[in-house]
Amino acid sequence: MTTPVVLLLDPIPADAVGDALAESFRFAGASDPILSAFDAGAGRGDGIFETLGVNDGRARGIDAHLDRFAASATKLDLPQPNLPQWRAAIERVLGELPRTGQASIRLVLTRGNGGTPTCWVTGSIVDGDFPERTTGIRVVTLSRGYANDVGEHAPWLLVGAKTLSYAVNMAALREAKRRGADDAVFVSTDGFALEGPTSSLLLRQGDRIVTPAIQHGILAGTTQADLFDVLTAEGFTCESRRIDTRELLRSDAAWLVSSVRLAAPITAVDGTDVATDPELTARMNAALLG
Amino acid sequence: MTTPVVLLLDPIPADAVGDALAESFRFAGASDPILSAFDAGAGRGDGIFETLGVNDGRARGIDAHLDRFAASATKLDLPQPNLPQWRAAIERVLGELPRTGQASIRLVLTRGNGGTPTCWVTGSIVDGDFPERTTGIRVVTLSRGYANDVGEHAPWLLVGAKTLSYAVNMAALREAKRRGADDAVFVSTDGFALEGPTSSLLLRQGDRIVTPAIQHGILAGTTQADLFDVLTAEGFTCESRRIDTRELLRSDAAWLVSSVRLAAPITAVDGTDVATDPELTARMNAALLG
Repeated sequence: MTTPVVLLLDPIPADAVGDALAESFRFAGASDPILSAFDAGAGRGDGIFETLGVNDGRARGIDAHLDRFAASATKLDLPQPNLPQWRAAIERVLGELPRTGQASIRLVLTRGNGGTPTCWVTGSIVDGDFPERTTGIRVVTLSRGYANDVGEHAPWLLVGAKTLSYAVNMAALREAKRRGADDAVFVSTDGFALEGPTSSLLLRQGDRIVTPAIQHGILAGTTQADLFDVLTAEGFTCESRRIDTRELLRSDAAWLVSSVRLAAPITAVDGTDVATDPELTARMNAALLG
Repeated sequence: MTTPVVLLLDPIPADAVGDALAESFRFAGASDPILSAFDAGAGRGDGIFETLGVNDGRARGIDAHLDRFAASATKLDLPQPNLPQWRAAIERVLGELPRTGQASIRLVLTRGNGGTPTCWVTGSIVDGDFPERTTGIRVVTLSRGYANDVGEHAPWLLVGAKTLSYAVNMAALREAKRRGADDAVFVSTDGFALEGPTSSLLLRQGDRIVTPAIQHGILAGTTQADLFDVLTAEGFTCESRRIDTRELLRSDAAWLVSSVRLAAPITAVDGTDVATDPELTARMNAALLG
């Protein structure tokens, strides 16, 4: 099959098994339209997604992505996804991707039309070698408009859910490019660093690795969690806590980490060069690809 | 043609005229899929929309909606819509709707896939008589998470654009229902009333009608603007300014106004009954339908 791959999933109950599950898949052409004008995913960004990185035919962190997918469904009052169905869908899409090289898989579940969700999985080959894994990225800090504890008080703002309503994330990336940078770090109105528009933030401070705590208005990062395992095994102390925006400038290294680009070292923040750790960056990316 | 109606628009330059425009339309079936899995509208809520009210075959405020549509495109760095094309599309969809009764028309432009936007217009008959135009709505106040001046400092948050990223708006409506109310009024973190998730806020205070000013983090309301014209002609002084959340409780009347439901009088705020003005409500709705 040619790529990209599109696999449609029939909506089935979360506990459906057997034939109902096995027969719930159907491939579509990459450019085939699959969503109607009245689907909540098409008209209101009302749904959830996950993006998984794939290397040499293996998808990273399937369990963590499925867990977060189910948690996002709960936060949006969507029907619970049938996780064995989605796992089988990932395997089917993997079966259509090349056995070597890098790729990405995306899971999408929308609120559909009339209560029945619309579900699909895509698989795409990732072009290029991600030179930014070594050359790094220049970032700007952009206000997210929220205080760091907004998610605790206003769950309807969906700050911890990975929703299809990504227009602000995309606008932030355009603003970063407009300012001559490669990416952005969202900061809270009360002075804390949060996350990138499509990534999590990691800092090294001596033998400690820190990331913003998820109760502080951010999405739980699957790549960040993988790296905490890797770095703990290396002897680092890993912790989640509030991170003052000024720590971006005075750490020993900083990264934006995500499922497909992996660990991209931050080389400058708002035009000021910052320290990097090329050896650790290389080990992190090697571990993620390993 | 049966309703709902779906009309697809070929993407054409903003200044295209003649055959390029006249031949740029194609009807689709209401349940036909029209968006691919890789469309930014399907996967990222990355696009814009407008909803117009229709009564007895006439759409209200076409100019105002098209102006706001173009302004939203600018805010999202989308290609400018060809406004004569969208106007012609509205007319074609109106031609397929019943000549009597109420309906709605929705314009959607997504960032598409690879730089070419995806564009469509739908027309739907509105069922029911909107009893809430007379019986009213109970609202709860919900934090929008932002200070009222966020839009001035952080345009990438897109607060003044009508984007497809509406998951938070939908979650706020569910939260309102969960609290036993019918609708919500978003409030800023610094204590100002902003707007409903899908509507604008109007208050009457004696012979003054006030609405939150758009520089304070809200969308410019087309129905609100229409009503300001109507109410100014009635002798009211109409103004846009910051509105303290507590004013919701001590005004002579309050409404959430929108293109299809029109003026819905607020009867209670966070469980406390508030004053209403049934005569003025009736005149407002009659004027909008007239």
